[in-house]
Amino acid sequence: MLAQPTPDTSRLSAPSEPGIVASVAYCDGRRVADIPVGEAGAWAAKPDHFVWIGLWEPDEPLLMDIKQQFGLHELAVEDALHAHQRPKLEVYGDSLFMVLRTARLDGESLILGETHLFTGKGYVVTVRHGPSTTYSPVRARCEAAPPLLKHGEDFVVYAVMDYVVDCYFPVLDQMAGKVEELESHLMRQPPGTAEIERIHQLRRDLERLRRAASPLLEVCSRLERFDLPMIDADIRPYYRDVHDHVIRVNEQIGSLREILSFAFETSMIVAAARQNDVTRKLAAWAAILAVPTAIAGIYGMNFEVMPELHWRFGYPAALSVIAVVCGGLFVRFKRIGWL
Amino acid sequence: MLAQPTPDTSRLSAPSEPGIVASVAYCDGRRVADIPVGEAGAWAAKPDHFVWIGLWEPDEPLLMDIKQQFGLHELAVEDALHAHQRPKLEVYGDSLFMVLRTARLDGESLILGETHLFTGKGYVVTVRHGPSTTYSPVRARCEAAPPLLKHGEDFVVYAVMDYVVDCYFPVLDQMAGKVEELESHLMRQPPGTAEIERIHQLRRDLERLRRAASPLLEVCSRLERFDLPMIDADIRPYYRDVHDHVIRVNEQIGSLREILSFAFETSMIVAAARQNDVTRKLAAWAAILAVPTAIAGIYGMNFEVMPELHWRFGYPAALSVIAVVCGGLFVRFKRIGWL
Amino acid sequence: MLAQPTPDTSRLSAPSEPGIVASVAYCDGRRVADIPVGEAGAWAAKPDHFVWIGLWEPDEPLLMDIKQQFGLHELAVEDALHAHQRPKLEVYGDSLFMVLRTARLDGESLILGETHLFTGKGYVVTVRHGPSTTYSPVRARCEAAPPLLKHGEDFVVYAVMDYVVDCYFPVLDQMAGKVEELESHLMRQPPGTAEIERIHQLRRDLERLRRAASPLLEVCSRLERFDLPMIDADIRPYYRDVHDHVIRVNEQIGSLREILSFAFETSMIVAAARQNDVTRKLAAWAAILAVPTAIAGIYGMNFEVMPELHWRFGYPAALSVIAVVCGGLFVRFKRIGWL
Amino acid sequence: MLAQPTPDTSRLSAPSEPGIVASVAYCDGRRVADIPVGEAGAWAAKPDHFVWIGLWEPDEPLLMDIKQQFGLHELAVEDALHAHQRPKLEVYGDSLFMVLRTARLDGESLILGETHLFTGKGYVVTVRHGPSTTYSPVRARCEAAPPLLKHGEDFVVYAVMDYVVDCYFPVLDQMAGKVEELESHLMRQPPGTAEIERIHQLRRDLERLRRAASPLLEVCSRLERFDLPMIDADIRPYYRDVHDHVIRVNEQIGSLREILSFAFETSMIVAAARQNDVTRKLAAWAAILAVPTAIAGIYGMNFEVMPELHWRFGYPAALSVIAVVCGGLFVRFKRIGWL
Amino acid sequence: MLAQPTPDTSRLSAPSEPGIVASVAYCDGRRVADIPVGEAGAWAAKPDHFVWIGLWEPDEPLLMDIKQQFGLHELAVEDALHAHQRPKLEVYGDSLFMVLRTARLDGESLILGETHLFTGKGYVVTVRHGPSTTYSPVRARCEAAPPLLKHGEDFVVYAVMDYVVDCYFPVLDQMAGKVEELESHLMRQPPGTAEIERIHQLRRDLERLRRAASPLLEVCSRLERFDLPMIDADIRPYYRDVHDHVIRVNEQIGSLREILSFAFETSMIVAAARQNDVTRKLAAWAAILAVPTAIAGIYGMNFEVMPELHWRFGYPAALSVIAVVCGGLFVRFKRIGWL
Repeated sequence: MLAQPTPDTSRLSAPSEPGIVASVAYCDGRRVADIPVGEAGAWAAKPDHFVWIGLWEPDEPLLMDIKQQFGLHELAVEDALHAHQRPKLEVYGDSLFMVLRTARLDGESLILGETHLFTGKGYVVTVRHGPSTTYSPVRARCEAAPPLLKHGEDFVVYAVMDYVVDCYFPVLDQMAGKVEELESHLMRQPPGTAEIERIHQLRRDLERLRRAASPLLEVCSRLERFDLPMIDADIRPYYRDVHDHVIRVNEQIGSLREILSFAFETSMIVAAARQNDVTRKLAAWAAILAVPTAIAGIYGMNFEVMPELHWRFGYPAALSVIAVVCGGLFVRFKRIGWL
Repeated sequence: MLAQPTPDTSRLSAPSEPGIVASVAYCDGRRVADIPVGEAGAWAAKPDHFVWIGLWEPDEPLLMDIKQQFGLHELAVEDALHAHQRPKLEVYGDSLFMVLRTARLDGESLILGETHLFTGKGYVVTVRHGPSTTYSPVRARCEAAPPLLKHGEDFVVYAVMDYVVDCYFPVLDQMAGKVEELESHLMRQPPGTAEIERIHQLRRDLERLRRAASPLLEVCSRLERFDLPMIDADIRPYYRDVHDHVIRVNEQIGSLREILSFAFETSMIVAAARQNDVTRKLAAWAAILAVPTAIAGIYGMNFEVMPELHWRFGYPAALSVIAVVCGGLFVRFKRIGWL
Repeated sequence: MLAQPTPDTSRLSAPSEPGIVASVAYCDGRRVADIPVGEAGAWAAKPDHFVWIGLWEPDEPLLMDIKQQFGLHELAVEDALHAHQRPKLEVYGDSLFMVLRTARLDGESLILGETHLFTGKGYVVTVRHGPSTTYSPVRARCEAAPPLLKHGEDFVVYAVMDYVVDCYFPVLDQMAGKVEELESHLMRQPPGTAEIERIHQLRRDLERLRRAASPLLEVCSRLERFDLPMIDADIRPYYRDVHDHVIRVNEQIGSLREILSFAFETSMIVAAARQNDVTRKLAAWAAILAVPTAIAGIYGMNFEVMPELHWRFGYPAALSVIAVVCGGLFVRFKRIGWL
Repeated sequence: MLAQPTPDTSRLSAPSEPGIVASVAYCDGRRVADIPVGEAGAWAAKPDHFVWIGLWEPDEPLLMDIKQQFGLHELAVEDALHAHQRPKLEVYGDSLFMVLRTARLDGESLILGETHLFTGKGYVVTVRHGPSTTYSPVRARCEAAPPLLKHGEDFVVYAVMDYVVDCYFPVLDQMAGKVEELESHLMRQPPGTAEIERIHQLRRDLERLRRAASPLLEVCSRLERFDLPMIDADIRPYYRDVHDHVIRVNEQIGSLREILSFAFETSMIVAAARQNDVTRKLAAWAAILAVPTAIAGIYGMNFEVMPELHWRFGYPAALSVIAVVCGGLFVRFKRIGWL
Repeated sequence: MLAQPTPDTSRLSAPSEPGIVASVAYCDGRRVADIPVGEAGAWAAKPDHFVWIGLWEPDEPLLMDIKQQFGLHELAVEDALHAHQRPKLEVYGDSLFMVLRTARLDGESLILGETHLFTGKGYVVTVRHGPSTTYSPVRARCEAAPPLLKHGEDFVVYAVMDYVVDCYFPVLDQMAGKVEELESHLMRQPPGTAEIERIHQLRRDLERLRRAASPLLEVCSRLERFDLPMIDADIRPYYRDVHDHVIRVNEQIGSLREILSFAFETSMIVAAARQNDVTRKLAAWAAILAVPTAIAGIYGMNFEVMPELHWRFGYPAALSVIAVVCGGLFVRFKRIGWL
């Protein structure tokens, strides 16, 4: 992978027109010129040149312009206009269309963004939707490594994928932290409403993350399996590296799911154990408190002939009996663990 | 996909005879003539022409007539007569037989319809069963796009499939909305009979939807995998697009199942937590109410010698002791969260 | 499929000797002669002839006779003698051995029968075991369709398979009916012993049915996959039709399993909800009934100085307090839904 | 399969030296001579001869001797010395090494044994470990069928496998019996400690059995898939027969697991239902018993003016009220099924 | 496998410089010389020689030096610097990069280490991270077996893998012991906090172990599947042996998971059964204790006319009635098993 990505939500350069974040031509690994989108097709056609255009929620005319210059397929452009696609890789003739989902945590909530990527001979177009982070850091890092950037489009595609996939790791680490916190709480006491809500929210977020990340497995497999003309042999190990990261992301998601599900089951049994405790405690106190009532009830009877009532120490004796029986029960219940 | 489908349950044109919704010949992407079904075979045989017949619960003679004209296979026709098929794709020689299930929500209930589709050189026949919506909008949209319709039968088949599959999305969105509503309810309190019934109904409906949608995955794979003679290379990306939508439908169904199952488990634990609460509350109040009974019982005893009984402030003292003990218990139970 | 099968447990013709239900030679789709089993081999060898022998729990000598005439494989014959096989298809040289399990419901109980089928050039031998229904209706229907029966052995094999598979549908429909009945019961109240027993029985029966039906998937796949010399190209669509039915049977079994499992989980949560209700009711009544006891206890104390005791309306006042407090609690508990 | 195996734990002939159960040379399907192990290699090399050596927990020198004579692979011999292998099939050049696990029930407990089998041109060596039964009956049965034994080593290997696999069936039948017993018990009442322990033990035993039996599926597949030089085409159907039995064993294990798991869930719901019953009963009796206490409490109050106290039939009236209210509650609770 | 590995956490020889545990050249299966890392490339290039370098958490310059000498791939070296990789096998041209995870139990806690292994023509480099044990025993054992070590790099790689995999077995055995202990505890009584925590910890540890061990399955498959130039045919059976051990490790993990999950479910039902017991006990005692209260309450009423009060033996009679009813209830409850 490239150097550790630092998710950066600011933009390095303001777009020259709405929807365009950057539009640059490269040659031999070096930045040649900032170009207008309208000339992108011409630059892309120059030998050893390629252009890399970054868009953010472009409107239809802009996309149509780009479509025409690079000969993109109608269906791919339609997808890029509407967003809400699942991650996928489509091959249209000798151009590639890729959908990726980005992830980051904003406080407690998981934010999923969407990026579409068109590539072919001489061009890479990235289209961001919604709250996905800018790719300016990727561009900066690529430009800082001319020997690699010299490989051209395929290296840029790798760099974007690598950036997107590496953004999953901090999200997963934060989630794992939350899960661990929850676990240590649930182990000690049955879950309250807050814990139940958090566990449920985590499960839902993991499910959303899984849907964003798991189709990448197939995308990567296809990138490796197919002899795509636009991918150099030298670059292949880099794609395999991304694939490896994708596998790790998916394994971690799987593990977190498992662990949350363990935590859930553990909660159930903690709740059952606690219910047992409470019921036993209730039973024990009910028994202890029933004793004075019963004994006092007996000496509250109005029989004419009740010799104990006339004893001098009848009353303290009755109190003592009550105290002794209650105390005895208390000790006994303590001993068998009901209190 | 074509422009966003608007499910329309009305018919654009009344069928000329029972069971026939429309019967039209096309050439070069334009509507040529409304034709009687009896001449369909002849029109289909004209070079560059194809006919598109729409039927609704046809009777046996009508189907037999069509069978004879296009040389359909006996088994396919039998299936089309009886409905209750699972979605599938059968290849009989150089003709295709396809079964699709349509879905829509009518208020709370999920309505599944069934459509059978015969296609081959020069003809497309769609047979609707039960409450499936009419394909008139599909026909209107196809006729509005002659450059695409020019591709012929394979484009019509695509258009029908696209329409059927896109109808799943609003259904899934509504279901997702219901699930979310249920979730936020279940998180706060244990499920009552109404919620249990709704959760159960949703699970069943999802199961039905899954059975309708999941076989489409194989149908689409086979459409791509086979080199079916009737599908042009130009049209293939459109079929891949449908396939992609089918995958999305199935993923969403899977996700909703998961989430419903999470919601269910969450309900279990909320119910257990609530049971714990109630039992603890019960225990606490039982303890508090046992105190006056016990103390009053003691001073209701009839012993001759009970000095407290003769104290001037014995009675208020007793009442105070009761009040203090009960109050103390109350405060304590409040503090440990039992009340 | 052939016309809708009517399970018929009576025999059309009495067997001429124990174990033999019928033994008939066919030529060109027409019944030629009832033949003694001993001559079956000779008839099978005549050009364009084939024999179809139906047996019911034959003894060893009879099977050995048949084995010798058609050159069946020792292992297949052994299987046919002992029954209790799982459905399977074995190819021994140019002969096929098939095991099928039949299903029907006898009142509440699921009855699984077993049929073994030997076929090869010129012969079909069906061996029924236990309570499977006779194949006389199949024979009758085959004989009523000479154009199809003309295909020979492979059509007979198809007809038997089709008959066996189609018998699963009414069984599944009845089961689905029972499940639905159970569901609507379980939704309203927690399961009693009878419902628990029925739900458990249904799950077991479905498991048995699954074991009978799921191996047929592989049997059908192999019939399609292999270029079995004894199956004509013309007959293949019929086999595919059976395969399709087998898939449907298995999907319905899977769905019923799912739904039963949903019903089961729903029962759990209904039971938990009911437990909550009962405990709350118990708690509420305990609280209400504790009030008169506590108040009466207080005025039952024997203190010398208890002014209320000497009030004129002390007694009705006490009763009123009791009534008001109890009534107030009652109203409150009603309002929060505990009563 | 061969004739029904009778598990026989006695040895037919005493071993001539420790670790050696039998060492015999065969030719043309007939026993030629009991040979010393030291000459086994020489006998194996004679044309049309093969030797079959049976060992029981041999020491290292004995195994080393055999290793050298037949050129066994070091790793296979090491495995055979240490036992605790999982069932597997290894091919070393032109020799096979197979590990099988035998099963039998000793009263309540499942006993798993282990058998290692070396085979190659001219020899079969079986090595038993632990409590597995002797293979003398297999040898006896093989020797009784010279036409089959004539096939040589591959038939002996089949015979041993068949014997091992067929021993699973009585074990499974006994387990199924126990499961059925448990089921009918659990359906009627919640499980006690003994039932819980038995259900848990059965699940563990099934898991152990599964681990012993499921790898055989792959062993059999590989035996069929590979064109192993030592297996004749004539013998293949026999291997397929064993494979079929292995599939049946694994399906039965799967089914029993399912049924145990159903039984388990059924237990949970029976326990929940019973809990509901008990709580309701408790609530009902608490209510009934609270009535006399409350009423008696009221008439035990010491108010000066309590007219009822002076009524002639006040006491019996009070008793009657108590009786009527309690009786009324009792009847009502009976009617709603709480008692 | 080699002789039984004895995990040894001490180092046999102190590293000559930080990060280097050993750096040795071998020829013809014998140790030739301890070499400086800077000359490793030269030694590796000598015919029939290979070097084996052991590192422990090397710093970047050291790794870069080695990278340059053997021409390692940048991405592999990066992985080796950062650790936290999942087990994998990467082929870069004619060099292999392998990641393995080691496991051991330190008291109660599972310690996972990480080892990276580079190999190619003439060299093996092992890089240990974190708490993994030293490979000095592997080196010692290899050097003690020159005939095997003569095979060169591939044998060393096998020896390291074998060592790592065999270390899983004692870990699994200890875990199995703990599980068994837990099981016998859980069978007898519902789980307390300590047991719940231990069961949860075991499940998490097994999940971690699974993530460490399961990718090895694919690593081994790839080692067997690919015709890797650096692996001799003679060594292949050894790799298959490791593969077999990896399968066993994974099966044992799977089994332990199953058994823990059974234990968990068993706990649930034991807890439910216990809850039933406690509730019944509570109900029984509540009933018994309600009797004296009710009877005494009745004779505590102040009716003027209560004949029993004037009986001579009224009081003992009342006491007797109380005793008899309570005793009767006690006996009855004992008999039905509620007490």
